[in-house]
Amino acid sequence: MQPDCVVVDAMGGDYAPAAIVRGALKAHDEGLSVALVGDPERIRSLVGDSHIPVLAAPQVVDPSLGALPALRASPRSSLRIALEAVRDGRAAAAFSCGSSGAVLLESMRTLGALPGVARPAICVAIPRVDQRPLLLLDAGASVDCRAEHLVGFAQLGAAWARAHGADRPAVGLLSNGEESRKGNDAIRAAAVRLAASPLRFVGQVEPHRALAGACDVLVADGLLGNVMLKSLEAAVDLVTSNLDQIAPPAAEALRERLGWRRRGAASLLGVRGIVLVGHGRSDAQAVVAAIRVAARAVRSDATRALRRALAEP
Amino acid sequence: MQPDCVVVDAMGGDYAPAAIVRGALKAHDEGLSVALVGDPERIRSLVGDSHIPVLAAPQVVDPSLGALPALRASPRSSLRIALEAVRDGRAAAAFSCGSSGAVLLESMRTLGALPGVARPAICVAIPRVDQRPLLLLDAGASVDCRAEHLVGFAQLGAAWARAHGADRPAVGLLSNGEESRKGNDAIRAAAVRLAASPLRFVGQVEPHRALAGACDVLVADGLLGNVMLKSLEAAVDLVTSNLDQIAPPAAEALRERLGWRRRGAASLLGVRGIVLVGHGRSDAQAVVAAIRVAARAVRSDATRALRRALAEP
Repeated sequence: MQPDCVVVDAMGGDYAPAAIVRGALKAHDEGLSVALVGDPERIRSLVGDSHIPVLAAPQVVDPSLGALPALRASPRSSLRIALEAVRDGRAAAAFSCGSSGAVLLESMRTLGALPGVARPAICVAIPRVDQRPLLLLDAGASVDCRAEHLVGFAQLGAAWARAHGADRPAVGLLSNGEESRKGNDAIRAAAVRLAASPLRFVGQVEPHRALAGACDVLVADGLLGNVMLKSLEAAVDLVTSNLDQIAPPAAEALRERLGWRRRGAASLLGVRGIVLVGHGRSDAQAVVAAIRVAARAVRSDATRALRRALAEP
Repeated sequence: MQPDCVVVDAMGGDYAPAAIVRGALKAHDEGLSVALVGDPERIRSLVGDSHIPVLAAPQVVDPSLGALPALRASPRSSLRIALEAVRDGRAAAAFSCGSSGAVLLESMRTLGALPGVARPAICVAIPRVDQRPLLLLDAGASVDCRAEHLVGFAQLGAAWARAHGADRPAVGLLSNGEESRKGNDAIRAAAVRLAASPLRFVGQVEPHRALAGACDVLVADGLLGNVMLKSLEAAVDLVTSNLDQIAPPAAEALRERLGWRRRGAASLLGVRGIVLVGHGRSDAQAVVAAIRVAARAVRSDATRALRRALAEP
């Protein structure tokens, strides 16, 4: 196992371990540095004679439990052992398709938060109409958020955008309308605080305006952000499946451009290390895409860049 | 003005009154019974020599205010006068593209709620993968909802589905996951109550499974429901605009099948009369589609059918 490797939780996700292992093998074949964590016998039977490193983990996070009870029940889970490898410098990034709540909690426990970060968030890059990325966070880690959490997510998202070269990224709050009285109490209170902050805050933003380019960073609690993300994905799936009957090559081109399976993974921002969260429904293709994203984050030393951007005024 | 007519608030919406009047004129040309309410001079200058009836309203609901202050500031608004025409039996349905919160409040005040309905909801029919409608409510009238409101929306939506011929419609709660612990406190509490109700409750449902057919009625607070609806619309717009570059006829076919401008309007369920709410961005085409939906609701005596379905066990 190389210290620049992406350690993959083979046991998390609807199609684990088979789809996860297949994806990791593909990434390995592409020359990416990858390791797998989980039940060693099941993994070895799936990897065949590939020389991909395998870390043994005796337990699995039970997805039928809530995050906290599940982590209590499995202190030596594949997720935990993957995160410990990152913490101890034996790996450079961790990736899991398990429950995002469990990944959040276990990452906080194992890696800890970056300075100044009260609550990490899951950040996903969505292609806007102008093909530039819209960073949506939180995409599903924390359902219940107060205004201070939303403000924290805005700071995290803006720092992440700056760490990726954006100059004064525009920050919006996901809402059901654009006026300052729109949204729930937490959204309205966060809007007041963000308007008084050094961030370039553009107010409450609706989904269509966000995709049209009204902001670079779109902030929401994990319930609202997750429903927006999954609605976009569901609509793209619905449209491309309708299009399959009319113009199959166009459907395939659109899937390539907009489908979530090619996007890779979401980043857990705000913890001390690179952690990526995949779709529960990830297939091998989605896993490869995610590992590519993780490898890029490793090469660009993404956590250090985020930390530096967070420290900027 | 005929008693079976759809009375259209000419002054509500981003492109009012021009786009609204153009849409009403088209519907009138199709032989539908329509009347317009608003500033009589502006409307007459737009309708030309058409014989469409015009009701004068001296005031307009100010969209820059919240619903309650806006209604207080305009007791003789075009919205109010349209709803009074329905209340007094001079018209059979009202349609407005103004603020949905204002339409909800003014409808409650002018028409009142149906027996047993604590809070009306905006219900929109979304095409599922199998081309059958998914009823989503609340799509934006009430941002802050407790469990009891979500249960009420479930009863309303199920009754509306039965009134349209569905047998034991499946009801789901929009959430960020499918397990019973998913969602916020209101969603989880509503799930417990719905599981014990006579409704066919299928639990928490994510957007993609709802569109795939997991339920006929999808219940959410107005913030979550609105963000889902607008995300779906934004994604369809994004995909079809991408597709314009690849396969323009396919893009047009998809817009025809899935775009919100052809869908018509959303129904305000639970008030004593037929009230439809249009998109703020409605153009003339969307207005015609909405008036057609309203006319169909009038012909089928939709409010009476809903009332009867609500009274069923």
